[in-house]
Amino acid sequence: MVRSRSFSVFTRRFDGGIGGRDPDELVVEEPMTIRLDDHPVASTMRTPGHDFELAAGFLLAEGVIEPGWITGIRYCGTGSAVESEFNVVSVETGGRAPTPTPRLGSISASCGLCGSEAIEGLTERLRVLPAYEPWDLELLVALPDQLRAAQTLFDATGAVHAAAAFDRSGRLLVAREDIGRHNAVDKVTGRLLLDGKLPSATTAVASAPDLALVVSGRASFEMVQKAWVGGYTALVAVSAPSALAVTTARRAGLTVVGFARGATATIYSPAELVDGRR
Amino acid sequence: MVRSRSFSVFTRRFDGGIGGRDPDELVVEEPMTIRLDDHPVASTMRTPGHDFELAAGFLLAEGVIEPGWITGIRYCGTGSAVESEFNVVSVETGGRAPTPTPRLGSISASCGLCGSEAIEGLTERLRVLPAYEPWDLELLVALPDQLRAAQTLFDATGAVHAAAAFDRSGRLLVAREDIGRHNAVDKVTGRLLLDGKLPSATTAVASAPDLALVVSGRASFEMVQKAWVGGYTALVAVSAPSALAVTTARRAGLTVVGFARGATATIYSPAELVDGRR
Repeated sequence: MVRSRSFSVFTRRFDGGIGGRDPDELVVEEPMTIRLDDHPVASTMRTPGHDFELAAGFLLAEGVIEPGWITGIRYCGTGSAVESEFNVVSVETGGRAPTPTPRLGSISASCGLCGSEAIEGLTERLRVLPAYEPWDLELLVALPDQLRAAQTLFDATGAVHAAAAFDRSGRLLVAREDIGRHNAVDKVTGRLLLDGKLPSATTAVASAPDLALVVSGRASFEMVQKAWVGGYTALVAVSAPSALAVTTARRAGLTVVGFARGATATIYSPAELVDGRR
Repeated sequence: MVRSRSFSVFTRRFDGGIGGRDPDELVVEEPMTIRLDDHPVASTMRTPGHDFELAAGFLLAEGVIEPGWITGIRYCGTGSAVESEFNVVSVETGGRAPTPTPRLGSISASCGLCGSEAIEGLTERLRVLPAYEPWDLELLVALPDQLRAAQTLFDATGAVHAAAAFDRSGRLLVAREDIGRHNAVDKVTGRLLLDGKLPSATTAVASAPDLALVVSGRASFEMVQKAWVGGYTALVAVSAPSALAVTTARRAGLTVVGFARGATATIYSPAELVDGRR
């Protein structure tokens, strides 16, 4: 069953006076719950479509599954046509994944958590990215234009984020759109994971190709976390990164460029590239 | 202690070649955990500052506290200067609030939840907004320009959302900036709540003034939920709403205009305004 990703309503234009009724397309937003071996893990507001990718990509980013653990993904109550059953996705690992504690639980167990502790948490479970050839910056800064051309839902609704994975030659491998920027990234990573093409899932191979992750908006800590977990070596954002995002990226060795607008950009990371020691 | 909301790093500009090192300001992003009567409720990535407002506004929007219940708000471990202790805020009601179940728990208890069920959930705990005079659309669509003038952190960092409350005369009452759009709204509502000026907290008074909530980005379901809970009668967004946001707003009787850009906008809700039956 293909679920609609846009929804028609009537609106009116205001330009000093109220105009006639116009048909308008709005992006669909629905809650989705992710379960792991039948334990609830998280709920997110998302645009329906590519739900299995979203579940797989999210669980990988959260560090609760490893590549290769997934034995099956299904909707809750498969077989029935009840709409709400398409809003729960169960990822199965045959018990290989430890029983997940809700994200909140791990954070609130201690008195608090600050930005540097959040980075430490990632550093404990992720290795600094392996050495890689510097990216061709001219190629990187032009990638958002390619992504833009793939944003069909944005063209229809004007209210949706996008993310995409590109290879070293600037070829677009996967592009996804979603009302949540983090969901768009999880869907891209989830697709690569399910196809066995995610860099972090193939680091055993010395010549594993690295990829660039491109996002249509800003680069928050969460975006850098997802890029690092996925094994991407470059993160390209159309807008600005946060302080924690840049600090984390420099720790990971991840290349981050922001305000990438066709031919220009700002370089934030890695430190060697900014400091000129490369 | 005033915590910094921006952070300086060096970057380099790329415009075909790599330019010199420039100092750059990035918005600060830190995790914050909200506790209610010493039970953890949620964690969010936010820009430090106005943390008590954020906690109060969030808990109200989630429906776990009522106006007037708050007896105190404090940082975890107050008195110490440990940075991470400023990232946990405890809201106290002296036990008046029921022990909170994490958000996830309530959603995942059943098999699933779809958009219309999400609306039903709100409808069960919130009344349709009381009848109100139609808003002056010319005034409404110009409010984002006023908010823009108050976005000092955006000017410095280019990576931060904003929200504000305005009265019927177009006077700005509270404006807040945060890396998360939902946090900016919670901070505005939390300030009004703590000051006893929130419309939903004063509906007993027949002549309680209604307010407009203005957001710098899109209007998602969550934004409409927060506007409805707060008792605002208008939600003004600079960008587009989602389908669920519009459906929910029409159910609430909330006025929603999107793409508000100085003199023009698109009218999405209430249905009477779009259908012309007003």
